[in-house]
Amino acid sequence: MKTAENAQLALLLEVAGTPKPGNVDRERDFPDLRFEHFLAGTVGAGPGLRAAEEGAPVGESFERAIAGMSQQEGGNTQFGALLLLVPLVKAASANENGDNGDAGGDAEDAPGRLSPEDVTRVVEATTTEDAADFFRAFDHADVYVDDPPEDAAELDVRRGSDAIPAVEERGVTLYDVLALGDDADDVAAEWTGGFERTFWAADRLAELAGSAPASATAAQVYLELLAREPDTLVAKQHGEKTAESVRVRAQEALEGGPEVVEAFAESLVADGVNPGTTADLTAAGLFVALTRGEVSV
Amino acid sequence: MKTAENAQLALLLEVAGTPKPGNVDRERDFPDLRFEHFLAGTVGAGPGLRAAEEGAPVGESFERAIAGMSQQEGGNTQFGALLLLVPLVKAASANENGDNGDAGGDAEDAPGRLSPEDVTRVVEATTTEDAADFFRAFDHADVYVDDPPEDAAELDVRRGSDAIPAVEERGVTLYDVLALGDDADDVAAEWTGGFERTFWAADRLAELAGSAPASATAAQVYLELLAREPDTLVAKQHGEKTAESVRVRAQEALEGGPEVVEAFAESLVADGVNPGTTADLTAAGLFVALTRGEVSV
Repeated sequence: MKTAENAQLALLLEVAGTPKPGNVDRERDFPDLRFEHFLAGTVGAGPGLRAAEEGAPVGESFERAIAGMSQQEGGNTQFGALLLLVPLVKAASANENGDNGDAGGDAEDAPGRLSPEDVTRVVEATTTEDAADFFRAFDHADVYVDDPPEDAAELDVRRGSDAIPAVEERGVTLYDVLALGDDADDVAAEWTGGFERTFWAADRLAELAGSAPASATAAQVYLELLAREPDTLVAKQHGEKTAESVRVRAQEALEGGPEVVEAFAESLVADGVNPGTTADLTAAGLFVALTRGEVSV
Repeated sequence: MKTAENAQLALLLEVAGTPKPGNVDRERDFPDLRFEHFLAGTVGAGPGLRAAEEGAPVGESFERAIAGMSQQEGGNTQFGALLLLVPLVKAASANENGDNGDAGGDAEDAPGRLSPEDVTRVVEATTTEDAADFFRAFDHADVYVDDPPEDAAELDVRRGSDAIPAVEERGVTLYDVLALGDDADDVAAEWTGGFERTFWAADRLAELAGSAPASATAAQVYLELLAREPDTLVAKQHGEKTAESVRVRAQEALEGGPEVVEAFAESLVADGVNPGTTADLTAAGLFVALTRGEVSV
């Protein structure tokens, strides 16, 4: 498959994985956010992902992906996942074309095997124009975010394109914008931290490959990610204490087996607790593993 | 959404609909053919569907769609559905572009509302080159088909591209090739019969729209299609008597409600009976309803 197609397949496998406690999956709809909204979001994101594959800037590709994703009635389905996937697609595509800007020849960064360095180069090269397009993307989707830092109120992403004059005046890049939030948002933390959890997930998916269908290993890795670190969307919506409690319960579910996992899943849905950032990381890990040829369907 | 995107969404909604007795759905995998193979098949078919949207010939677009669909390990997932969707996409796209070749101005065929006449024009305009590409498509996928008519042994589709010299010598179009099989194959019968069951399904989906999520109404319409006519894939694989018995049981399931439908679904899987043609018609009906804006997600 081509790079953008792997990204779409990653989004589909992620949402197909079940049980994925607290998230929509193929056996669980929320009242207003259903499995089929994620299917439509994936199809709609195609043109933006293909733009990234063809080398378009990160911001432009991302805004296009979000505009396309939003052509369904469920609202924000894959905003965070696409914020990880767009630079990963661009990096993978550059890598395949032998155009990854890598001066060295170390094994970790051999052409054809997508590395943290490849994607870090892409995010570090983002511009103020990328930042402006990122803010435009918020015009298309209603995304749950925290208040910005006190000294950056003008850069509140919830202002959408209204914030662009401030972005341009300050001359911040998209990388700079995400760095403002990387302590409270694990998607932003991936951008500034070498996509560490994404590549961890990819390696785990590769280890588990063949033991079960890809969507089932994705559900397993989702739970492992959730057990390792508190989900930052849960922390924003319900507080850090709840997020830590969910992490501990994920650990218990991993140790307790399928019945405990099911009960955990039911209770998160009942409480309206949605570890959406962990699902985003799972999708990104699937993309890396698919691109590396270490997971297949 | 754009036309090719509606086709991909139709494929995804079809396979997501559950219960869809005898077919893979989001709650039922077969041992070697799983839900995720259909997800990958849908993503892979994208370039072929976009080629049809952009006006490429039916045969070329179809071969590309099948080559893309086949980049997964489950085998033939959506061959029949794509044989319906490719001309429908081409017709819908021409229609949107005001280039549908329609001389008249009747209401049935108003621009913007895809009609049987639009797609019939497309299939009737297929050429010998389209037929050759259709045979090439069989090189990519292992498709269950009957023996050809006695006077057309050279045109056995199972020969794949080996049959192309005979296709060219006889000068048959793709429409001609499908007309050879339209008494035993309901996908072929759609081509030569104005896509009657496709448009019937689209109208039923439009009637049911809003009463349940789109994938749920698709599962309902699948069952209604199955209750109306014997599935031709079942007839080919298990004989006409079995196909008629499945039709009658589908009718009983419709009347009996969810528990009877579930029991019917379990028994078809246990007996290895797969009404795949009816699933193809459901996907095609979804596409028409999405394109007409009468079903949304």
